[in-house]
Amino acid sequence: MATIAVLGAGAMGSAFCVPLVDSGHEVHLIGTHLDRLLIEEVASTGYHPKIDSRLPEGIFTHTIDKLSNVLRLQLDLVVLGVSSAGVDWAVKKLSEALTRLPPLLLLTKGLRADEGIIRTLPGYMAESLARQGLDRAQIGAVGGPCIASELAARRDSSVVFAYRENGVLEKVSSLFDCSHYHIRESTDVIGVELCAALKNFYAIAVGYPLGRAETGGKRYNAFNPSAAVFSQAISEMSYLVEHGGGSFHSVYGLPGLADLYVTCQAGRNSRLGRYLGRGLCYREIMEAQMRDETVEGAVLAAEVGPTILALCEEGALDRGRIPLAVALIRSICDNSPFSIDWESFPACPTLQSSE
Amino acid sequence: MATIAVLGAGAMGSAFCVPLVDSGHEVHLIGTHLDRLLIEEVASTGYHPKIDSRLPEGIFTHTIDKLSNVLRLQLDLVVLGVSSAGVDWAVKKLSEALTRLPPLLLLTKGLRADEGIIRTLPGYMAESLARQGLDRAQIGAVGGPCIASELAARRDSSVVFAYRENGVLEKVSSLFDCSHYHIRESTDVIGVELCAALKNFYAIAVGYPLGRAETGGKRYNAFNPSAAVFSQAISEMSYLVEHGGGSFHSVYGLPGLADLYVTCQAGRNSRLGRYLGRGLCYREIMEAQMRDETVEGAVLAAEVGPTILALCEEGALDRGRIPLAVALIRSICDNSPFSIDWESFPACPTLQSSE
Repeated sequence: MATIAVLGAGAMGSAFCVPLVDSGHEVHLIGTHLDRLLIEEVASTGYHPKIDSRLPEGIFTHTIDKLSNVLRLQLDLVVLGVSSAGVDWAVKKLSEALTRLPPLLLLTKGLRADEGIIRTLPGYMAESLARQGLDRAQIGAVGGPCIASELAARRDSSVVFAYRENGVLEKVSSLFDCSHYHIRESTDVIGVELCAALKNFYAIAVGYPLGRAETGGKRYNAFNPSAAVFSQAISEMSYLVEHGGGSFHSVYGLPGLADLYVTCQAGRNSRLGRYLGRGLCYREIMEAQMRDETVEGAVLAAEVGPTILALCEEGALDRGRIPLAVALIRSICDNSPFSIDWESFPACPTLQSSE
Repeated sequence: MATIAVLGAGAMGSAFCVPLVDSGHEVHLIGTHLDRLLIEEVASTGYHPKIDSRLPEGIFTHTIDKLSNVLRLQLDLVVLGVSSAGVDWAVKKLSEALTRLPPLLLLTKGLRADEGIIRTLPGYMAESLARQGLDRAQIGAVGGPCIASELAARRDSSVVFAYRENGVLEKVSSLFDCSHYHIRESTDVIGVELCAALKNFYAIAVGYPLGRAETGGKRYNAFNPSAAVFSQAISEMSYLVEHGGGSFHSVYGLPGLADLYVTCQAGRNSRLGRYLGRGLCYREIMEAQMRDETVEGAVLAAEVGPTILALCEEGALDRGRIPLAVALIRSICDNSPFSIDWESFPACPTLQSSE
């Protein structure tokens, strides 16, 4: 039995306690200051409203003021389920309480743009921790199709754990031993993280044709254009991931195509795409239909979109390989109508390579 | 303006007339002997019940007895939209009427097992035509996500045309000039054909977790396991396509992942998978819930499944790379319950290659 802390009691952090408890561990779920009501509800009733589930017995729940107590335990793993914006806060809290870090596993997804460079969260976080005196942090990424409510309901979920070093990768993976959570091991931290962030962004584009079709009456669906956009999205993700130093294997596997698949079946990103398809612009949607909602793919476009456009401008990225990304970034950042220019999509690689 | 014959007035053959007419051609749609009622309805009302659409004006419709008249025209292209079982019949009809073949474009999908070898339809058909004295047939494949009713409704559809020779590939592609039909050119005839056939088969497996979840109450969905199966399916298709002499680029593009995507959103293959997920066996489903329906993926399993198992037995195929295919073929051919053995799915290629 290991002792494991999960920081962040939102949907994903809380759902992640299920395979941990099912694997027989002592699990401590700590809500952030934003999660006070959630953690109180879970503590008193067991029910978590964001995943519409009762969490299993045996999870120790804590409000944020108890964080330092939990961090004083001999922890085998700290799981971070905070929001992308909460990463800096988590670095501060960890470095205040600890002088040596157990392995971290990052459920949080996102990218940072920093002086013309796009960074993944594990790299960004390792540097931040090092500046606070916590050197050589072992920060793992989780990728693959894993909707929190389904994980909590013990649907079979197949994910990729990625650490740079095989030793910690095997150690963390071996903590999970339950029938419904299937881990594949990878050392491609960058590829897994890039896929996890980019899939939200591209899911917006896959949703677009469905909304566009709705404006002309719903009698016929629009899976043909959605599927073609899906394919183009995977092709662009493959280019961006390899450009960023990741492996195309991650794109053509669970972190890339399977996670994009699941993200396109439901969720806020594809819903934003549908509204764009109806001819609305980003800001009006976020002020009306999706008021008070966070659309991760749009947040990503705002965060790293301008850097991607600048890299295209410099020639560091080939704009012709990512026409969908460029069009979507422009639409979101300039608040202009989105549309798909089919002629901008590249030819088949088979024919390109034979010429 | 070119003169084009489409043989077979089912959903796909008929829908395919729409981009042809929109490109300004003289289009002749000929129903087979099975299509007599369909072709009469289209001729008299314009409405096609299988695609729930009114076909555009200007299509010349013919019953099968007029086939030889049409084939006597100076045809620039013959499009075959017959069923997989109708290919031999089409070979007979073409060879009776013609001494020189125009380029053929094959909408029909399927594979043939022949003395331990799995063949694609263009190869099979070219040999059959040669035996009837029609040498050097130029037979193209069409792949990619293209539901017939959406094509007829002029949804943007992006497909791949594949011919072995660039000359005929360019010539046929250039016949299409309309705003909603987007052709990518490829020379990977084998890869495109294998993808087009295999996606039906694998869509059954992607549907399975949804049905399995239904047996436990519908409160939580099952997109996590469906997406993981989707990813495994693409990995297996990639192995099978490369083994068959095709290119993995076709798998990771429109013919493979995009067509599998669209097939999983709707249709009979994924519906069969859902029934399997409820614990029913293949034959009882086909005698009750899906009576009188043709499930192309199951037809394929029956046709080439035993050959695939035999190739695994011989060691020509690596069973460890296609656990999903093996399980599904057994379930359909032996009429036994289907289930997914998550532990049988291979590790991530990134880690495999680093070890």
